[in-house]
Amino acid sequence: MSSDRKLTPLGEDFSAWYNEVVLRAELVDYTPVKGSLVIRPYGYAIWELIQGALDGMFKATGHENAYFPLLIPESLLAKEAEHIEGFAPQTAVVTRGGGKELEEPLVIRPTSEAIIWPIMAGWIQSYRDLPLLINQWANIVRWELRTRPFLRTLEFLWQEGHTAHATQEEAEAEARQMLGIYRRFMEDWMAMPPVTGRKTEREKFAGADRTYSCEPMMQDNRALQAATSHNLGQKFSRAFEVKFQTEAGEHDYVWSTSWGASTRLIGGLVMTHGDDVGLILPPKLAPIQVVVVPIYKSSAERASVLEAAERIRASLDRNVRVKVDDRDTLNPGAKFYEWERKGVPVRLEIGPRDVAAGQVMVVRRIVFGDAERKVAMGESEAIAMLEGLLETMQAGLHERALDRRERNSYRGLKDYGEFKQIMSQSGGYIYTGWCGGEECESKVKDDTKATIRVIPDPEFRSDDAPDKCIACGAESTNEVVWARAY
Amino acid sequence: MSSDRKLTPLGEDFSAWYNEVVLRAELVDYTPVKGSLVIRPYGYAIWELIQGALDGMFKATGHENAYFPLLIPESLLAKEAEHIEGFAPQTAVVTRGGGKELEEPLVIRPTSEAIIWPIMAGWIQSYRDLPLLINQWANIVRWELRTRPFLRTLEFLWQEGHTAHATQEEAEAEARQMLGIYRRFMEDWMAMPPVTGRKTEREKFAGADRTYSCEPMMQDNRALQAATSHNLGQKFSRAFEVKFQTEAGEHDYVWSTSWGASTRLIGGLVMTHGDDVGLILPPKLAPIQVVVVPIYKSSAERASVLEAAERIRASLDRNVRVKVDDRDTLNPGAKFYEWERKGVPVRLEIGPRDVAAGQVMVVRRIVFGDAERKVAMGESEAIAMLEGLLETMQAGLHERALDRRERNSYRGLKDYGEFKQIMSQSGGYIYTGWCGGEECESKVKDDTKATIRVIPDPEFRSDDAPDKCIACGAESTNEVVWARAY
Repeated sequence: MSSDRKLTPLGEDFSAWYNEVVLRAELVDYTPVKGSLVIRPYGYAIWELIQGALDGMFKATGHENAYFPLLIPESLLAKEAEHIEGFAPQTAVVTRGGGKELEEPLVIRPTSEAIIWPIMAGWIQSYRDLPLLINQWANIVRWELRTRPFLRTLEFLWQEGHTAHATQEEAEAEARQMLGIYRRFMEDWMAMPPVTGRKTEREKFAGADRTYSCEPMMQDNRALQAATSHNLGQKFSRAFEVKFQTEAGEHDYVWSTSWGASTRLIGGLVMTHGDDVGLILPPKLAPIQVVVVPIYKSSAERASVLEAAERIRASLDRNVRVKVDDRDTLNPGAKFYEWERKGVPVRLEIGPRDVAAGQVMVVRRIVFGDAERKVAMGESEAIAMLEGLLETMQAGLHERALDRRERNSYRGLKDYGEFKQIMSQSGGYIYTGWCGGEECESKVKDDTKATIRVIPDPEFRSDDAPDKCIACGAESTNEVVWARAY
Repeated sequence: MSSDRKLTPLGEDFSAWYNEVVLRAELVDYTPVKGSLVIRPYGYAIWELIQGALDGMFKATGHENAYFPLLIPESLLAKEAEHIEGFAPQTAVVTRGGGKELEEPLVIRPTSEAIIWPIMAGWIQSYRDLPLLINQWANIVRWELRTRPFLRTLEFLWQEGHTAHATQEEAEAEARQMLGIYRRFMEDWMAMPPVTGRKTEREKFAGADRTYSCEPMMQDNRALQAATSHNLGQKFSRAFEVKFQTEAGEHDYVWSTSWGASTRLIGGLVMTHGDDVGLILPPKLAPIQVVVVPIYKSSAERASVLEAAERIRASLDRNVRVKVDDRDTLNPGAKFYEWERKGVPVRLEIGPRDVAAGQVMVVRRIVFGDAERKVAMGESEAIAMLEGLLETMQAGLHERALDRRERNSYRGLKDYGEFKQIMSQSGGYIYTGWCGGEECESKVKDDTKATIRVIPDPEFRSDDAPDKCIACGAESTNEVVWARAY
C-alpha cells in the first residue's frame, strides 16, 4: 500500500477508513495466523501508556499484579455452568503436548476465572485474608471467525482483575469502583467519555450476577463496549469451593468480582478521534507528543538546523515526549504527512530562516475554536507554551467527543417507528422506556440490530424518561440506552 | 505448610531448601495445571522491577517493544531445520478451535523466531529500514516433564529481542551488546555476577550461528544459564526469505539476532542470595526495601507509634520503597519473621519507648564486615542513612557473590582425576583446556554431569590456561569453563 495514497474518507465508508488508518499508522499488521494480528511498535507504545495509567490506578486502590497459567484443564472450565456455556464455542484447545496426546485437553484461557479461583481458594482461610485484590496483565484467546483489528481478534492483550470479599456489599462496591476507574481513565486519558450503567440479563458476562459497562460512542454513532466490571456474587466461589471463616467464626463462600479492559481500547481511540488524514491521538496517550522536523538543503544548513532542533528537544525532554526526525532519507513533506497520519499532536518545523530569526513554526494536528493551525513563534515562547497547548488539545478532544455523543443521543422518544428510522439512518444512542422483557430486547435487535447497551447510571438518566416500553408499550421498569455496537 | 516451621537448611538439601523458600516467601504457588505455576503478587512485584530495569536498558539502546502472535502454524516452525529439530519435542499443540478440528495445527510459541520473521520480512525493503530492533515481553510454553519453580516450567514469562541488520558485523556487535546489557543488569541490579562467553556447537541455540551466555554461580556451586544472546547469521532470513536492497542496489538476506531472559532470573536471585531463614533480596530488586513494624499494646500506644511510623514512611517514601506493617492480626515477632523470610533488606522497629526517645531500631536482613545487625538510632539520623545503607547492602551482596564464585572456581587444572573429584564433591567452575571435540564434551558429561558452560570472554580467561584438553590430552583450542548446571 503506497504511503501517500489518500485514505477512504471516514464519512464514506467508516469500516474501510478504520482498517486503513490502523494499518497505515503502523499500529498493527496482518500475520500468517488467521485472525491474529501483530501489534507494531507504534501501536504497542500506545498500549504501554494505557497500561501504565491503568496499572497506576489499580495499584493506588490496593490491587496487586500476579500471573496465572495460560492453559486451563477443560474440566475446570466446565465447573460453572453458565460460564462454560458462554465460552465453550470460542475456545482453542491443546490436545498434544511433548509429542503425546494429552489425557485431558487444556483450553487456552478465554478469561481466567476458572483457573484463578481454584488457586486463590488456597490463599483464603479467614476474613483476615480478605479482601483479596488481584490483577493480571495477560494474553487471551477466543476463537473468532470475523475479526477486526483491535476490536475482535483471535488473540488479544488485556488486564483482568479478580477480587474476593467477605460481603455482598463489598463486592458490589468493588465492581462499582472499578467501573468508575475505567470511566475516569477513558475521560481523563483517552478523551473518550463513556455512558456507564448495568447490562441486562441477556447482555451480561457468562457467570456474573451483574455486569457494568463503559460505552463510549464512536464516530459512526455506534457504541463500543470498552471495559466491563462484573459482580460475580457467589457463583464462582460456590463452583470452586472458595470458603472463608467469618469474624463470627462461621463459614461462608466469598463474594467475588472480575473486571477487564483490553487492546480494544486502542480501536476505540482510533474511532473516537481520527479523521480523513489518519490517526489523532490525545496527548496523554501519544507516544510522541511533539515531533521536530528540521528543514535543510545544504550540509551547513543541516548542521545549524539540527543543532537548534536538538536544543529544543533538550528543553522539552523533561516534561514532553519529543522526537527529532533527523532522517536523511525522507523529505520534510513526507515527514509531515507521516506524523499527521500517526496522530502526533504537535509538529515543530524549523528551517535556516527560522534559526536565523530565533523562531519555529508550531503546527497543530487539530485545531479547536478560532486558533490558528500553523503559527510562527519565538523559540523560547514556543517551548514555554507547549505543555499548555497539549493540555488544551487533550481537553478539546474530550469536549468534542462529549459534544458529538450528546448530539447523537435521543431522549424522550416514544414512537417505535421513529426509533427504527433513526437506527436505520444516522444511528446513535436512543434512551427509551423498557418493560424489562427479553422478548422486547430480541424484537428490537431483530428489527434494528440495536441492543440495550446499558441501564444507565443515575447521572446519565433523562429527566423525563418515558414510562412505557418502546417496543411493547407496557409499563417501563427502567430507562435504557439502545445502540448498534461493535 | 505452617509458616513458622524452620526451612530445610541450605547446606543440607539445596533443592528442598529452594522449593521451600520460593513457596514460603510467597513468590509462587502450585496450580491444577501440571508443570505450570502461578507467580504470586510478591514474586510478580520482583518481576516488574526486573522488567522495568531491563526494558529501560533495551530502550536506551534503541529497541522498541511489539507483540506477535502466541500461535504459530506448524509449517512455519518447520521452516528452519535445526530450529524445529530442537523445539518440536517440547511443543504444545492446538488442534481444535471454535469447536472444530483445525486443518493445520497451531503450536504455542516455544520462542518466536518462526512467527516473527515471516511478519518482519514485510517491514524490510531496503537498507534504510535497518537495523530493525524489536523486543517482545511474552509468555512461552515448552513441554517439560520435570519442572522446578522459575527454573523449568511448562509456561514461563520472558522477553525476546529480535533484530535485523545489514551486515554480519553489525549482527555480531548487537549480539555482543545485548550480552553486555544482561551482564551489567545481573551485576548492577541482581548482585549476581556472571561469567560470560560463547557456547560450544553442542550447547548453542537451535538455529544460531553463535550463542553467548551469562552464567552466574549458585550457592550449590552449579551454573545457571541466566540469559542468552544469539547471532543467528542468515539462517532465519534464508529460511523465511527476509531480503533487503543494499546501499549498492543489490539484494541480500538480513543478518539477525535474538536474545532473551526470563522469570528464571528470579530463581537465580533466590539461589544466589538466600539463607536458612529464607529469601535475601538485593535492595534494587526488593519490592519493599524498608518495612516499618510498629510495636504496641494499648490503643493509646498504638496511636502514637503508628503516627511515628507514618511520619517515617512519609519521609522515606520519595526515594525508598517503604511499607508500614500495621496489621492488628499478627504480633510483632510474627511480622519480623515474615519479612525476614521474604528478604526485605531493612526493618525498622518502633515502640512506645522509641517514640519517647525519638529513636528507632534499625535491623538489617544481612550484615557485612563488622557492622551490627541491630542498632538503635535517632529517627532523623536513621532516615538520613537508609539510602546509603541500602546501597552498601547492594554492593555487599555483589561482592559476596563474586567472592563465592571465585572461591569455587578452579584454574590451571590439568589432571582429569582431580577434575572428577571436584565435580563429584563440592562442584564449582573448572577452567581447563579443551581440544574442541564433541566426544570430549560428551565423555566429561557422562563421567561428571558437567558441561561446558562457556568458552569464556577475554576478561574471564586464565593467565596460564592449560594447553592440553582435560579429557583427551590433545592440544587445546580454547580454554573452557565446566560446571554442572540448571
